[in-house]
Amino acid sequence: MQNIKVFIWGFGAMGRGMAEMLLTKKGVEIVGVCDIHPDLVGKDFKTALDIKTDHPEVIIEQDVDKLLANVKPDIALLCTDSFVAGAFPKIKKVVEHKIDCISTAEEMAYPSANAPELAKKIDSLAKQHGVTVLGTGINPGFIMDLLVVALSGVMSDVSHIEAKRVNSLSPFGPVVMHEQGVGISLEAYESRTASHDLAGHVGFKESVMMIADALGVKLDGFEQQMKPIVTTIDRKSKYGEAKKGTLAGINMTGQGLVDGKVFIDMFHPQQIEPEMEGTHTGDYIKLTGTPAVNMAIQPEVDGGIGTIAMCVNMIPHVLNARPGLKTMIDLPVPRAILGDMRDLLEDA
Amino acid sequence: MQNIKVFIWGFGAMGRGMAEMLLTKKGVEIVGVCDIHPDLVGKDFKTALDIKTDHPEVIIEQDVDKLLANVKPDIALLCTDSFVAGAFPKIKKVVEHKIDCISTAEEMAYPSANAPELAKKIDSLAKQHGVTVLGTGINPGFIMDLLVVALSGVMSDVSHIEAKRVNSLSPFGPVVMHEQGVGISLEAYESRTASHDLAGHVGFKESVMMIADALGVKLDGFEQQMKPIVTTIDRKSKYGEAKKGTLAGINMTGQGLVDGKVFIDMFHPQQIEPEMEGTHTGDYIKLTGTPAVNMAIQPEVDGGIGTIAMCVNMIPHVLNARPGLKTMIDLPVPRAILGDMRDLLEDA
Repeated sequence: MQNIKVFIWGFGAMGRGMAEMLLTKKGVEIVGVCDIHPDLVGKDFKTALDIKTDHPEVIIEQDVDKLLANVKPDIALLCTDSFVAGAFPKIKKVVEHKIDCISTAEEMAYPSANAPELAKKIDSLAKQHGVTVLGTGINPGFIMDLLVVALSGVMSDVSHIEAKRVNSLSPFGPVVMHEQGVGISLEAYESRTASHDLAGHVGFKESVMMIADALGVKLDGFEQQMKPIVTTIDRKSKYGEAKKGTLAGINMTGQGLVDGKVFIDMFHPQQIEPEMEGTHTGDYIKLTGTPAVNMAIQPEVDGGIGTIAMCVNMIPHVLNARPGLKTMIDLPVPRAILGDMRDLLEDA
Repeated sequence: MQNIKVFIWGFGAMGRGMAEMLLTKKGVEIVGVCDIHPDLVGKDFKTALDIKTDHPEVIIEQDVDKLLANVKPDIALLCTDSFVAGAFPKIKKVVEHKIDCISTAEEMAYPSANAPELAKKIDSLAKQHGVTVLGTGINPGFIMDLLVVALSGVMSDVSHIEAKRVNSLSPFGPVVMHEQGVGISLEAYESRTASHDLAGHVGFKESVMMIADALGVKLDGFEQQMKPIVTTIDRKSKYGEAKKGTLAGINMTGQGLVDGKVFIDMFHPQQIEPEMEGTHTGDYIKLTGTPAVNMAIQPEVDGGIGTIAMCVNMIPHVLNARPGLKTMIDLPVPRAILGDMRDLLEDA
């Protein structure tokens, strides 16, 4: 049996991490890499990663049409966007080449939440071309949604759901420091939120709707809030610095309502050096019902490696799935792949 | 669309609990109950449960052939056995009537572990008759296996797995007190283990092999050990009593080996009133690798309700699945069903 052939579209932190992970796996090879950054185009991807292996040379190509005219991947890892609207034309191109697709775009984890029309289009395009499309990642995609759903499986009834992801931004680089407003003043925070320049966490609506649909609950509302986390002491991480009185990060909260009351309650504060003011990082799920389930993962699952691993580990499940747009609640549970990736493929 | 029609075979604690849970769900009804206990045969199952609802009368029948000649269930919940050998003839009968089947038998959670030949037979019978067979429960079936697998999905590499389920036997009745040797002397423990009269936990081999197969790891050994938990103080629960120096319960440990070293390490001490000697109950999963994952559920997920809920909640997934013998790693994640169960059925 031939290796599973992977095409990586977008060679930033996520795409590079997936390439590095794939180089350690058996039964799979990278056959194409697409990125438009001038420092990358024309280089062998292993040179770009500064890794020496016997994996065949794959030159990073900026023209995706030229690339797809020359190689026939089994699956594309699309690591370019956060929103469905941005990812859609790329997904369409991949699907029209009859290639399965996994997207890291946060909104693609449950695209019907914020882009129901595009979600329908993706589903019908995928079915038309006989391929499968999945959005996944650590969050949305696992911690605050799929894991909540899976834990509810041991319950006969659920009356309230609380999911909390308390993480540190300290390991992240300058892009994230800027996106999350680390070190900015309250005035800058106000003006940047007014101009929609601070993203905060993208994914609450996706997570809330994935949980509600999985459990068969009809929501009558969704709300979310963004608040600055103002530090009372000076904090400093490798790429970030927050002086006393400025932002150490952002606290996002979100709620899914049933009968006007909060049924799903989400908390996701992100900041540099949370321990300096006594905040312990972790992932927490608290399900009220029969029986109650009270879960903690401490410290929180690393978001960067987590997203990279989720995308790579879902490759065989996506290759096995029936055609169409799928979400994490449609497919078997993710798992680390320690053997040959082809062993997880079902007979066609 | 008609209700999903359920047949419950075995009306002990598990079968009764599933009936009670099904009575609270929409889009599903009980069409047959089989048990051989003289106190139950001939009674309406609701009378046996002492529950008044408008659910149609279903008389508990001891003759399964007579029962299946008169009703056409979509799925059977088989709550009769712990071992594949005992469950096999019943599964065969159900499958030959073209009925999907969920079994609570611990060994059925991964039947190829201890009964590979029967597992093959079940798979081919199920395919021949176009139905699906699944074994599940809280453990094996979820806590020490499926949840381990799911959490590994966020990892790029795993070097060691530890799963620990520390639970209290205090809520359980006289049957479990006897099976787990609560209150017996060390001499009685020695003689009962010598005559294979103490079961301890059934399911380590199933859990270990489910994890190994899911991750694609080749095991070169499996071992398990049983040890008495001798109390140093008098302990008492509703149905159990352990005087100082006697057994408060049993500690089971198990290991899956790779290259002669422990790769999967299982701990499952079960006892009455563990808090009296400072033991805190909980479910703990510790995955070493990239990134490390350190999970705790405190207190442990209730085993009785957990198994009942897992079996009922998996009904739509089993109805949707392709024919054959399936395990929890083949199907989408379990979930609590709060809406109409039929909404989870895929279009045929």
